[in-house]
Amino acid sequence: MILTVTLNTALDITYRVRGLRPHTSHRVTEVTERPGGKGLNVARVLAALGHEVTVTGFAGGATGHAVRDGLTAEPAVTDALVPIAGASRRTIAVVDELTGDTTQLNEPGPAIAPAEWNAFQEVYADLLPDVSAVALCGSLPPGVPVGAYAGLVRTARAAGVPVLLDTSGEPLRRGVAARPDMIKPNADELAELTGSHEPLRATRDARRRGAHAVVASLGTEGLLAVTPEGHWRAAPPARVRGNPTGAGDSAVAGLLAGLVEHLAWPDRLARAVALSAATVLAPAAGEFDRPAYEELLGQVTVTAEASAA
Amino acid sequence: MILTVTLNTALDITYRVRGLRPHTSHRVTEVTERPGGKGLNVARVLAALGHEVTVTGFAGGATGHAVRDGLTAEPAVTDALVPIAGASRRTIAVVDELTGDTTQLNEPGPAIAPAEWNAFQEVYADLLPDVSAVALCGSLPPGVPVGAYAGLVRTARAAGVPVLLDTSGEPLRRGVAARPDMIKPNADELAELTGSHEPLRATRDARRRGAHAVVASLGTEGLLAVTPEGHWRAAPPARVRGNPTGAGDSAVAGLLAGLVEHLAWPDRLARAVALSAATVLAPAAGEFDRPAYEELLGQVTVTAEASAA
Repeated sequence: MILTVTLNTALDITYRVRGLRPHTSHRVTEVTERPGGKGLNVARVLAALGHEVTVTGFAGGATGHAVRDGLTAEPAVTDALVPIAGASRRTIAVVDELTGDTTQLNEPGPAIAPAEWNAFQEVYADLLPDVSAVALCGSLPPGVPVGAYAGLVRTARAAGVPVLLDTSGEPLRRGVAARPDMIKPNADELAELTGSHEPLRATRDARRRGAHAVVASLGTEGLLAVTPEGHWRAAPPARVRGNPTGAGDSAVAGLLAGLVEHLAWPDRLARAVALSAATVLAPAAGEFDRPAYEELLGQVTVTAEASAA
Repeated sequence: MILTVTLNTALDITYRVRGLRPHTSHRVTEVTERPGGKGLNVARVLAALGHEVTVTGFAGGATGHAVRDGLTAEPAVTDALVPIAGASRRTIAVVDELTGDTTQLNEPGPAIAPAEWNAFQEVYADLLPDVSAVALCGSLPPGVPVGAYAGLVRTARAAGVPVLLDTSGEPLRRGVAARPDMIKPNADELAELTGSHEPLRATRDARRRGAHAVVASLGTEGLLAVTPEGHWRAAPPARVRGNPTGAGDSAVAGLLAGLVEHLAWPDRLARAVALSAATVLAPAAGEFDRPAYEELLGQVTVTAEASAA
C-alpha cells in the first residue's frame, strides 16, 4: 500500500465563465467539485494505475466533509485523514470559456492546533509499517511547524519506507536536509532551493543538499533525473497543449508507482512523463487521458546524460 | 413577525487578494463567509432594527449546512428553510486590496425538484397566518416555475398579508401582474420591465402593470416612490462612497420595517435611504454602519412630486 500525505487538503472547485473581466459580475455556467491537494491528486492517479493507496493529512469543516464525501467515490483510496476543528481550504479555478485560460484563487488553509499536529504524527507513525512508499505533498497549513516535512522524512526513513517529498520554499529546504529518497521540484522550486536557474547544475546541487534522487520537472521539456544510478532526461514526443493543472502530481504518481514496482529509472521516468502529458491532454483538470497515456508511454524519449557532477 | 423568502439562498464568500490578474494564480489573504441571498440579507437588517424575522426558502448540501450554521449566530432570525437534495449555491466576491474593486462570481443554484417546490409552498402557507409582512427576494433557482412569485404573491394577498417583491426579469413581470403591495426595482430592472429608461415614466408604468406601490432605487440618487398616497423622491445628503453590495437589500428592510410600524411614506423612504447609504459606508459588504444610519436618518431629503400620471 502507498501512503500519500496532504497536510493542506482542499476542496478543488472549478467554475466556467464566459469572459472573466475584473471588477464585474459573472454568472458561473458550470460548477465542479472534487477532493484536492497534491497528495490526494497523486492518490487518485495511483488508484487509476491499480495501486492501493491510503491518504492522510487533515480535513475539517463543511469543506473537509465534502472532501471526505468525494473520497468515498474512489474505492481504491482509503481515507485516513485526521479531523480538525478548522475548515479545509477551497481552491477556485475560474476557466474562461472564451480563451480557455484559468485564473486560480487559493485559500490559505485552516490553522492547525498543536494537539491536531500531534494526532497526525501518531496516525502517520501507525500507518508506516504497512506502507511500501510514502509521498509528502504540498504546502503546510498555518500552525504546522516549518520543519514538519523534515520530521516526517526522518520517521519514514527510520521505518525503512522510501519517501518522496514534493513541496517548496523553506519546508522543502529543511525536508531535503533530512535526506528523502526523492524530491520532484519544478524549475522555480529548484531555483529557490539552490539559487541556480541552470537546471542540471541546480539538480545536482539539490542532491548535494541531501536528496538521494532529484527529479526536476521542466514543464514542456519533461523531466531531468539525477540519481545514484545515473542521470537522465525524459521528454514527451511533442509539445503537449492543454491544462497543466495536476501534471506534476501525475508525475509524482508515476515515479512512486515505478518505485514500488521496482522499475528501472528510465521506465519510471517514461511512465512519469507519459502520465504528466496525458494529464495536460485531459479535458478535466487533474485527470489523465488513459488512451493517450498508453500511447505516449512508448513514445517518451529517455536519454542518459554523462554523470560527471 | 416579518417573513422573508429566499428561494436561491447562498453562502456568500468574500476573498481578499492583492491585485486580481486574469490567467494567473492568487493567494487569498483573507476569507469570510456568511449566509446570503437577498432575503437573508433583508432579514439580518430587520433583526438589527429590532424586528423578529423568519426566513424561508431552500437550503441543501454542505453549503446549505454552512448557511444554516451561520443563521444560528443571529438570534432574532428564525430558520424555516426547507431542506433540498441539491447544494445551495456559493457566491464569491473577490476584493482587490490594491484597487478596492470587487469581482463577483455567482453560482447558478441547485435544481429544485417538484416535490421540494410543493413542500416549500406548504411551509409558506403555514407561516403566513403569523406574519405582519412578507418579502419575496431574489432570483429563482433552476426547477422553480417562472411564475413562482406570482403564485406566492396571490397566496399572501389571500391571507391578507402585505407583500413586497424584489426580483427581476420574467419572474418580476409575472409577479407584478399578481398585484403585490410593493416592488423595489433598480433602474435596470425597471427598464427591463417597462421598456423605458426614464425613471418616473417607468415607475408609473410599473404601477399600471399591477404593483400597488413602486419604489425605484436609483443608485446614488436615492429612491423614487410612486404610491396611491403620493409620489416622492428621497435622497441621501451627499454622494456616499463605498461598497454598494447589499444596499438594495437594506432599502427593502427599511421599507418593510416602515410598513409594519405604520410609518407615513416619507418616513419609510427616509429610513430606507439612510439604511441603504449606511450599508454603502460599512466596511463589510452587506452590513450597515449604525452610527452613520442614525446620523443620516435626519439628513435624508424627501420631496413630494406632482402626482399627475
